[in-house]
Amino acid sequence: MRRTMEEDGLDGLILTQPENIRYFSGSSRGGLALIPVEASPILYVYRLDYQMALDEAVGFRVKYGRNPLKKMLRDMAGMKLRKVGFDQLTLSAYNVLNKALKRVKVVDYNRKVHGLRAVKDEEEVSYIREACRIASKGMEAAYETLKPGVRECEVAAAACRAMRMEGSEEDAFPMIVASGVRSAYPHGGCTRRRIGRGELVVVDLGATYMGYRSDMTRTFVAGEASDRQVEVWEAVLEAYSKALENVRDGVPAREVDLTARHVLERRGFGRFFIHSLGHGVGLSVHEHPVLSRYSREKLVKGNVVTCEPAVYIHGFGGVRLENTVLVSDGRAEELTVFPMDLL
Amino acid sequence: MRRTMEEDGLDGLILTQPENIRYFSGSSRGGLALIPVEASPILYVYRLDYQMALDEAVGFRVKYGRNPLKKMLRDMAGMKLRKVGFDQLTLSAYNVLNKALKRVKVVDYNRKVHGLRAVKDEEEVSYIREACRIASKGMEAAYETLKPGVRECEVAAAACRAMRMEGSEEDAFPMIVASGVRSAYPHGGCTRRRIGRGELVVVDLGATYMGYRSDMTRTFVAGEASDRQVEVWEAVLEAYSKALENVRDGVPAREVDLTARHVLERRGFGRFFIHSLGHGVGLSVHEHPVLSRYSREKLVKGNVVTCEPAVYIHGFGGVRLENTVLVSDGRAEELTVFPMDLL
Repeated sequence: MRRTMEEDGLDGLILTQPENIRYFSGSSRGGLALIPVEASPILYVYRLDYQMALDEAVGFRVKYGRNPLKKMLRDMAGMKLRKVGFDQLTLSAYNVLNKALKRVKVVDYNRKVHGLRAVKDEEEVSYIREACRIASKGMEAAYETLKPGVRECEVAAAACRAMRMEGSEEDAFPMIVASGVRSAYPHGGCTRRRIGRGELVVVDLGATYMGYRSDMTRTFVAGEASDRQVEVWEAVLEAYSKALENVRDGVPAREVDLTARHVLERRGFGRFFIHSLGHGVGLSVHEHPVLSRYSREKLVKGNVVTCEPAVYIHGFGGVRLENTVLVSDGRAEELTVFPMDLL
Repeated sequence: MRRTMEEDGLDGLILTQPENIRYFSGSSRGGLALIPVEASPILYVYRLDYQMALDEAVGFRVKYGRNPLKKMLRDMAGMKLRKVGFDQLTLSAYNVLNKALKRVKVVDYNRKVHGLRAVKDEEEVSYIREACRIASKGMEAAYETLKPGVRECEVAAAACRAMRMEGSEEDAFPMIVASGVRSAYPHGGCTRRRIGRGELVVVDLGATYMGYRSDMTRTFVAGEASDRQVEVWEAVLEAYSKALENVRDGVPAREVDLTARHVLERRGFGRFFIHSLGHGVGLSVHEHPVLSRYSREKLVKGNVVTCEPAVYIHGFGGVRLENTVLVSDGRAEELTVFPMDLL
């Protein structure tokens, strides 16, 4: 990071986003981080988080105060910084900073920070791999629980219990168990609704291990699948498979999205695929690279991304199939594992 | 909200925070909201969230676009707004807004929005009450699972399963099951660590119902409690009880914090109580009013707050006792229910 900062003429970097702070320091306790190019990096936290941040952080000094922002600004005043990057600043925090340090120029450096985070090293991949193993166990438990008459939240109960038993630190994101017409909501959440016979059920879940996330989706039918359901499912499965063949070091992200999109268009479902194909996964469940038709990013070895084509038909239901996969020189490795079948 | 805005000379309000958008519109899908004083309010979401936002939102028009911010700014350009409030804006979003609408003045209106949210109506209280009932079931399941040799994550598995079975939509926040020396971390999370005989275990959990949260903590001992553990627990329990007696319409929030703090100081544990006594609970797990010794807020009927005194001794362990309570004219009502004993 410092090398990039020097090239860009920055002499410091302010981090406010907990995942970025964890990425560089190892501390899970958020707060603020200051990384000067020519001095030791410092974490600023509230007093209640001080001891844990101190125990977790590597290579950072840790300070606490009633107002971590003001504490950081006082330190910055003594450092003669001229140009400082930031990952994200609220307008209100910027106004405080600007008043305290009139001569410091701040520049949005979020893209560079996320550029680093997008390429995982071996240790990171091992954590994501474990988070994916745990999610796969959660999906298995969801599948075993699911039948007509069971409530969406009961399926979620089985899945979350299984993931916790395997050591998931928390759900990677709010779990989705969306049945019947609700399955056509991409982010349908989870209710007390009873699953009806023959209904589509979208289950989207993820686990967390050492702060790293996983993300996977399967679509089941409670009972016998109709011809129409099978037709939609086959289209989504082909879109998934064709797109996955394209996930490889050096391929433009937009090409992978377009591969899936063209399959769905050819099968007449193009207008029902209303989001992008995937996203990076790491300390955040949504990070770079973005697999969208508007993306200008290229996939590189070490990216971990989702591949999740879908069809959402209002009043009928939805089908989404998703795995978290590791980009390499050859064929991408699927880190989440469970049959894709409608079952 | 509009009445307050008119009094303050605003002709519009921009909301970016999902809980604020849900509070006013009923939509759980985030995005952006624009509430002009003299025109219909509008939600701006991504396409994938459009149908659900449309189905959930009441009294709002819903629009979607690849860039919701730019879509909103185009609408704003036609409205001749002069002074617009916001709940939270990133510096980068502000820069886009400022470039597009040079003449519009923006002012931080977050405190006013949170002032409204801090006082719950009957419908909101009924949702929080249900979230508290569910959390109490989760605590019961945690208690029944907890014994020497069981892993922290196994206790969490039982609690999260119980809450999901009762219809919790998601954990209100990352659950804490922190045992042994880890119990001295206020935000210790949950690991695969096996709980040892005679160790303190802090369990802090909450459920979500209709988007509303709950928050409760109990501290258990796996086996027989030591004299020192009992001494700390008795101090925290007295701090809780004395503070709760003060939770009442019209009482300054700081007085309630100081009541608990003085009990712990008198018993020699003052310096180990390293956070404020509590916080409001609603659509967010941390909202107003803040029960801190630095707070200038007054408690009013309809506030829902936590009361959570604690003692954290590095290398020994921690004790925290917490309920979510409803402020009224008389004695506050404890909405989360489970014995406070060390058990």
